[in-house]
Amino acid sequence: MQRYFVEIPKITIGDTLTLNQNDSHHLIRVMRAKLNTEILVVDSQQQVFIAAFIRANDQQLAEVKVLTAYQQSVEMPVAVTIACGLSKHDKIDTIVQKGTECGMDAFIPLALDRDVVQWTHNKSLAKIERLKKIAKEAAEQSHRQKIPEIKDLMNLNQLFEICWQYDYLLVAYEETARSTEQSQLSQVFNQLERGKRILIVFGSEGGLTANEITLLEANGFTACSLGPRILRAETAPIFFLSALSYKIEIENKI
Amino acid sequence: MQRYFVEIPKITIGDTLTLNQNDSHHLIRVMRAKLNTEILVVDSQQQVFIAAFIRANDQQLAEVKVLTAYQQSVEMPVAVTIACGLSKHDKIDTIVQKGTECGMDAFIPLALDRDVVQWTHNKSLAKIERLKKIAKEAAEQSHRQKIPEIKDLMNLNQLFEICWQYDYLLVAYEETARSTEQSQLSQVFNQLERGKRILIVFGSEGGLTANEITLLEANGFTACSLGPRILRAETAPIFFLSALSYKIEIENKI
Repeated sequence: MQRYFVEIPKITIGDTLTLNQNDSHHLIRVMRAKLNTEILVVDSQQQVFIAAFIRANDQQLAEVKVLTAYQQSVEMPVAVTIACGLSKHDKIDTIVQKGTECGMDAFIPLALDRDVVQWTHNKSLAKIERLKKIAKEAAEQSHRQKIPEIKDLMNLNQLFEICWQYDYLLVAYEETARSTEQSQLSQVFNQLERGKRILIVFGSEGGLTANEITLLEANGFTACSLGPRILRAETAPIFFLSALSYKIEIENKI
Repeated sequence: MQRYFVEIPKITIGDTLTLNQNDSHHLIRVMRAKLNTEILVVDSQQQVFIAAFIRANDQQLAEVKVLTAYQQSVEMPVAVTIACGLSKHDKIDTIVQKGTECGMDAFIPLALDRDVVQWTHNKSLAKIERLKKIAKEAAEQSHRQKIPEIKDLMNLNQLFEICWQYDYLLVAYEETARSTEQSQLSQVFNQLERGKRILIVFGSEGGLTANEITLLEANGFTACSLGPRILRAETAPIFFLSALSYKIEIENKI
């Protein structure tokens, strides 16, 4: 939502405000506001409120009605599912803990060819219970409104069956071809809209095989590079979520 | 450096290339190239070379001379020093390991009021030796060309004495005032140039005291928020480095 600083000492819910000439021009002509278009208004005490456009008055100044206080959501405006190969030790724990802090929506443990460990059925059940506990604690610590969902262990074929649920399918991997100036990652980040769903696949320590990359690409996944340095299996998802958060929550709020 | 895709099957070092009309206009008029302004040229095989502007010819087309193959550096184009409060357990180890992967230039252990642990002189020496070893191993693993420097333990006054070495002084903290639409973080990221030096301070688990924030701001540090979620002490530096890397290494290569 577009934010306007109004020169008013204190806004109260229910107020009708008249924006100044510049802001009115911006809201009416540039943003092409319609009846009930919502904007944010900030008073001199830096309190933020949601207000709705009512009309342009005789002087072409925008009148807006203050609806409610604005609570910034701590949830990412897009839903990111992280699917990771099975790494050893407590690396999966780290991904789930830090991924939760960084805004992950869901996590899928993914059995891949080069995984160093395997999860038997029983081990898988115990692991998933443990990951759910980690996600809950991390969500509490980071003041999230949602506990990320920990899904059951899948292999690639099972992953392909649920792909249709997502708007963007990515795999963290060196891009094989750079057809344009822009990296795949920033192409995706620049077109994201609120509510979109991303599924991104990361290999375990062993990385992804050429065959897995071929299969992923054949199923609509786009390879995207995470920059010039080699990142560990447990660092790459955190890098991805941090970069995304910067882009859509800090730089350009979508 | 500005990058131009040239319709040439294979560029060879020493070639003189004539850019097409669009690219010539961009280089001469938009980028205002001078003699020896360096650009990147990419041939049809996606090989990248550094070339220098020589002149605009009679048709106002840019002639450039190919100097050398372009090796993308794995080092960040800006130097980031991370100064962190003393966290317990192995959190400092994690920050140094993952910070190294994510491109950190140097690390300063910083004694702050709310640190949960204290480092005695002897403990400090042993810790710093350990951190140097972790930085070296992580630099090797992530194919860095530089091992991040681990500096000696400092307090805030000692930190203030070395501040002049940096172009940007930041502290990760909720911004007290948002005077503009743009966050402090993106304001800084958008003005960065190659070779600039950033010093950023992070609290330990206990956070920073109001007094420390006042002192930091009085000494030229700008408070910048890392987004809507609360990040753990060891996650915040990784978030910062990932966001920065995305901005200056992936989205807009500086």
